[in-house]
Amino acid sequence: MIETIAPVAVDAMGGDNAPGAVVQGAINAARKGTPVVLVGPEALVRRELARRRPRSGLPISVQHASEVVEMHDHPGQAMRRKRDNSIRVCFQLVKAGQASAMVSAGNSGAVMAGAIFVLGRPAGVERPAIISALPAPRGAPILLDMGAVVDCKAIHLVQFALMGEVYARRVIGVPRPRVAILANGEEESKGTELTRTAAAALRRSSLHFVGYCEGRDLLTGEYDVIVTDGFTGNVALKTMEGTARVVTDFLKGAFRSSPLARLGALLAGPALHSMRRRIDWREVGGAPLVGVSGVGFIGHGRSDALAIENAIRRAHAAAGTHFTDEIAAAVAPSGALLVEADGTLAERSARRSAAQADA
Amino acid sequence: MIETIAPVAVDAMGGDNAPGAVVQGAINAARKGTPVVLVGPEALVRRELARRRPRSGLPISVQHASEVVEMHDHPGQAMRRKRDNSIRVCFQLVKAGQASAMVSAGNSGAVMAGAIFVLGRPAGVERPAIISALPAPRGAPILLDMGAVVDCKAIHLVQFALMGEVYARRVIGVPRPRVAILANGEEESKGTELTRTAAAALRRSSLHFVGYCEGRDLLTGEYDVIVTDGFTGNVALKTMEGTARVVTDFLKGAFRSSPLARLGALLAGPALHSMRRRIDWREVGGAPLVGVSGVGFIGHGRSDALAIENAIRRAHAAAGTHFTDEIAAAVAPSGALLVEADGTLAERSARRSAAQADA
Repeated sequence: MIETIAPVAVDAMGGDNAPGAVVQGAINAARKGTPVVLVGPEALVRRELARRRPRSGLPISVQHASEVVEMHDHPGQAMRRKRDNSIRVCFQLVKAGQASAMVSAGNSGAVMAGAIFVLGRPAGVERPAIISALPAPRGAPILLDMGAVVDCKAIHLVQFALMGEVYARRVIGVPRPRVAILANGEEESKGTELTRTAAAALRRSSLHFVGYCEGRDLLTGEYDVIVTDGFTGNVALKTMEGTARVVTDFLKGAFRSSPLARLGALLAGPALHSMRRRIDWREVGGAPLVGVSGVGFIGHGRSDALAIENAIRRAHAAAGTHFTDEIAAAVAPSGALLVEADGTLAERSARRSAAQADA
Repeated sequence: MIETIAPVAVDAMGGDNAPGAVVQGAINAARKGTPVVLVGPEALVRRELARRRPRSGLPISVQHASEVVEMHDHPGQAMRRKRDNSIRVCFQLVKAGQASAMVSAGNSGAVMAGAIFVLGRPAGVERPAIISALPAPRGAPILLDMGAVVDCKAIHLVQFALMGEVYARRVIGVPRPRVAILANGEEESKGTELTRTAAAALRRSSLHFVGYCEGRDLLTGEYDVIVTDGFTGNVALKTMEGTARVVTDFLKGAFRSSPLARLGALLAGPALHSMRRRIDWREVGGAPLVGVSGVGFIGHGRSDALAIENAIRRAHAAAGTHFTDEIAAAVAPSGALLVEADGTLAERSARRSAAQADA
């Protein structure tokens, strides 16, 4: 028996190219069989839909929401003051079981705030995180947190590891995900007090925890779940984006530098195009929240129809795995792991001081 | 009158390809007119030199040092126990004025430890930093700290900014460097407590401080001095390295994917080669220390002769600017800036709380 999964609630008003690109992305996803509820000012959304003349019978409906959260709005205030905003209504549909998941390319702080206010967190979760699917040539590594929790404590990192492992296993389908903490070197002695404490706790966990990884390992596919605080995660992801842009810009410049180079670029065209596709964030399909009681995907603010379509389809697939059911059990041991690790670290530090005094 | 600058002391034993690549790099630099003292076990170094038959009259001499710091040695212990190691001897030559600068591609922790032990710090410097010259297509941005100070306090970030500005102005020749702190967004409200405190202090300084920049801005050339803690700096630089590698690997694969693509790659060859050179860390020429009383450059562990040659030439040029003379004066206001900023931040935080209570 095939389980019928409720449609994906899509914030029609989220992102730089909303509502046009969002409505088009929703139509594309519906064409491929994913049911969608577009959420936003009804007249506006219906006009955008009509303009695109989708064939009748597509699984698309519209849910009215009168207000819009702007990119510059303070997330918490927007949720409290604009009670009928499209992000909040999306989450209400998820909460009520009328949607299986939600997608928004709008104010990401407001999406996180809406998720916490409306859906709440599974028992024991300290702070939800945002997962970034990394555009690696091999494997399907994820990094979390990509920006929600900037001033992190060790308990947060430990929980990110435990929650990320559930996501990699249930949604991505990695049987035994290799989990690492992002640091400034691979040796145990590297890192900050924060990462050393979290690493000590994760070494005692049931995860396949492999220790530290470095910035250059993000795209190798050697690690499945890469854990970091939201500050470092944001810096790493944007550095990746900026570097890829500079290298491809260099390339374009190089290809224009001489008639022979231009001919070369023309002949290599399809190969170059396939490369660009593989490192294209639009193919990745948004960033899932983890640690809230339901499925939400944050789209890139610059999302076009392709990015929205991919986010909708991935959100629907993720919801079908019911991975959120496993989160509370996954984070349950986090506190105890840290308490045990604390004892180990204190012992080691004492041994190290003794060794240095001998030296 | 042209000032005669003492030779560069080069650690012949530092790096994965030492001593061969180091000796060859020194010969290349000497051929281009930079005087060099090779430091290491004398018989070994002379044998490596003789094997390469440099023409007579090159400005190369050899200074004996009987011991070698290995990559796995603990930096501080190595400095204390191996009293006659090549890194330490390099710094002793600098201290004595017999060398204008030193270069080592060896254990970077030991290079930093040696610099602090032998040269010491200019008055007021809390922690020296390592500068990374970023391979940007436009401009010549630097990032500091790239890994020396992992658990950073605000005073360290403020001093990195003040010292980095001196380096950019005196050595790179940017008349009024634009200084930014690396963070997870451009708005003042972003960042961690650490970055917000440092930013508030720098806003009160005489620097051309432009606020936060993001990971994607590292290579744009829009910022001249990018300040961060050594943990984040290391992650950002290695992420850059890993991303560039993945993109160029993709490219190689794409170019091999069909006969036409192969022909295209052949035709575009010179253009691609020039691109690779521009993002090649070997061209950058090592990472200078700042905040020690003398000039030291750390080479990449994988340095080949080209990387060593570039590091020697840049170290010599940097020494000629006498930029270290200005460091003590530059960091002098750092404490006062933080005290003033502390008051401002406390006031703002109170205003923000009041505003939120109203909301």
